[in-house]
Amino acid sequence: MNRVYNFSAGPSMLPLPVLEQAANEMVCYGTSGMSVMEMSHRSPDYEAIIKEAEALLRKLMNIPDNYKVLFLQGGASTQFSAVPMNLIKRTGKADYAVSGQFSGKAFKEAQKMGYDVKCIATTKDDNFDHVPTITRDMIRPDAAYLHICFNNTIYGTKYGYIPDTGDIPLVADLSSCIISEPIDVSKFGVIYAGAQKNMAPAGMTLVIVREDLLDYAEETMPTMLEWKTMAENDSMYNTPPCYPIYIAKLVYEWILSLGGLEKMKEMNVAKANLLYNYLDSQDYYFAPVKKDSRSLMNVTFVTGDADLDKKFASEAAKAGLKNLKGHRSVGGMRASIYNAMPYAGVEALIAFMKDFAANNPKA
Amino acid sequence: MNRVYNFSAGPSMLPLPVLEQAANEMVCYGTSGMSVMEMSHRSPDYEAIIKEAEALLRKLMNIPDNYKVLFLQGGASTQFSAVPMNLIKRTGKADYAVSGQFSGKAFKEAQKMGYDVKCIATTKDDNFDHVPTITRDMIRPDAAYLHICFNNTIYGTKYGYIPDTGDIPLVADLSSCIISEPIDVSKFGVIYAGAQKNMAPAGMTLVIVREDLLDYAEETMPTMLEWKTMAENDSMYNTPPCYPIYIAKLVYEWILSLGGLEKMKEMNVAKANLLYNYLDSQDYYFAPVKKDSRSLMNVTFVTGDADLDKKFASEAAKAGLKNLKGHRSVGGMRASIYNAMPYAGVEALIAFMKDFAANNPKA
Repeated sequence: MNRVYNFSAGPSMLPLPVLEQAANEMVCYGTSGMSVMEMSHRSPDYEAIIKEAEALLRKLMNIPDNYKVLFLQGGASTQFSAVPMNLIKRTGKADYAVSGQFSGKAFKEAQKMGYDVKCIATTKDDNFDHVPTITRDMIRPDAAYLHICFNNTIYGTKYGYIPDTGDIPLVADLSSCIISEPIDVSKFGVIYAGAQKNMAPAGMTLVIVREDLLDYAEETMPTMLEWKTMAENDSMYNTPPCYPIYIAKLVYEWILSLGGLEKMKEMNVAKANLLYNYLDSQDYYFAPVKKDSRSLMNVTFVTGDADLDKKFASEAAKAGLKNLKGHRSVGGMRASIYNAMPYAGVEALIAFMKDFAANNPKA
Repeated sequence: MNRVYNFSAGPSMLPLPVLEQAANEMVCYGTSGMSVMEMSHRSPDYEAIIKEAEALLRKLMNIPDNYKVLFLQGGASTQFSAVPMNLIKRTGKADYAVSGQFSGKAFKEAQKMGYDVKCIATTKDDNFDHVPTITRDMIRPDAAYLHICFNNTIYGTKYGYIPDTGDIPLVADLSSCIISEPIDVSKFGVIYAGAQKNMAPAGMTLVIVREDLLDYAEETMPTMLEWKTMAENDSMYNTPPCYPIYIAKLVYEWILSLGGLEKMKEMNVAKANLLYNYLDSQDYYFAPVKKDSRSLMNVTFVTGDADLDKKFASEAAKAGLKNLKGHRSVGGMRASIYNAMPYAGVEALIAFMKDFAANNPKA
């Protein structure tokens, strides 16, 4: 069994101890006599798992009591529709900042659904090499919310600050940076995240919503997308994605055992610094993202030669460094170094980068 | 490791060989160097899994080429909204038959969303102890579709026939009987099913839709609920529920290795007959469902004394026969005997029933 270093942007690496525990418990969980996958979601054994998952996440993220934690299905893409359906009735219009592909998709989805939405800031003209600077005066005073994507997986950018939106709820897609470092939840109205990058396998979507924002759902919207219904039923209106929630619980336990999000940030900063410092120290590779917008989780770089980029990803894969090819829409390389990527994985990547540069001189 | 007989209605038992294979492959799948949970959904390794899952299901169910197979998220409950949003534009109105709680929920959801829907048949006045007899003249000629729930998990009933709807598409929720026996897919316009009863862990929803029915989606509906978008993207518009799809593939392989759906039906009929024949042979327990509507998958029975019912479920659980309590809305007992329940599990249940009857004479 040779495990590789998997730099996939998502689904992505999970901590080895979590996978080993899942393997050990697969056929029989504790004294239950069955797999977690076989448990009725309303059984005491499973209820203990989902309740513990929520309690651990609340502890980990220091989630205030006036926020509901929901474990849903459908991915962040489903939330692109759910956000306006749940919130826009507050005032009838909403603002979006577009800092990459997914925030653009969120904006377009709200438009497609016929809502009055406005893009108040975008860095599209700069190929999304940084995030917008958002100030309070840019947001329409009667916006129901401002939507942002906090970490842009494809471009490798992240907001280095939490935009000040005053009384207007800030709604943020945190799919690719959730639980990578401490964040002040109270600054947000709604946080949502697909689980498959830093938290669990694909199929679970986390929504953290301030309670006063549960009362604006469209009457005719699909019940399954109503946050209030899900909150009132403790994410059990129907059968939840039980197994991903169980894996998420194991991941939360793993992070807490290491020292929580402060420690996780320290480890993630160390990994990212190692890679960015190397990138800044040479001129074979170029990191296109502006320094103040650099992501801790997704590090993008190019050689400047598309054929070399292709060769890089292909040879890296053969060397056990998988999924370094950049997103099909932007090319180049991307190293996603989520919580589960060990420091040694980044060291191995840099060693490979040095060898590759030495062996493939540019014309 | 003592595995129990788990009679849960869903999530429910999975075949032991499937769980063992999943455990063995958890940390490292084949030569990939990673868990299936960690694979990019766009990687060749994962694409092989999802394509094989679809190919196996097509073979197993003999799905005609003019039907699309979609692996989605959100459960059958999400399809309660998706069905009218994708289909009602065909004519502007739709008909429903209500044969239990979930078909009732599907009907109410369409009503809640503001659609012109009509309940053309229900057996509510008989406590859903049988399914309605649906004839062509009952369906409005300009209905966009007729919606039914083919097997009613809570009540333990099943349609013993496929309603003849003529040119009107028949839309059926097959959550609790999918791949339990052969079914003529060509008689349906749309089949959908939550996976967590007979197919995979919770978090995957199967939709099988005839291609000519993909063109009626509401323009302003959530993209993630659009069957056409999902079909055009081979269920990869966003990250699919990768791990449940992988488990489904293992389950399909398991069924094919046993001899396919004909063999599965033979095994399921043998299990159900064993239990129903016992129920019919004595008068301590009573099976409330009319004989022509009996489900092969969910067998309901009562003692006629709520306290005894409670004691039964509790003592059975201690004897390793889990989750025999009936649904909270109807009480009594329910033995769900899906594909993965071995014949020996039903034998053990009957032995327990005999002992319990002998040890707990009625007043």
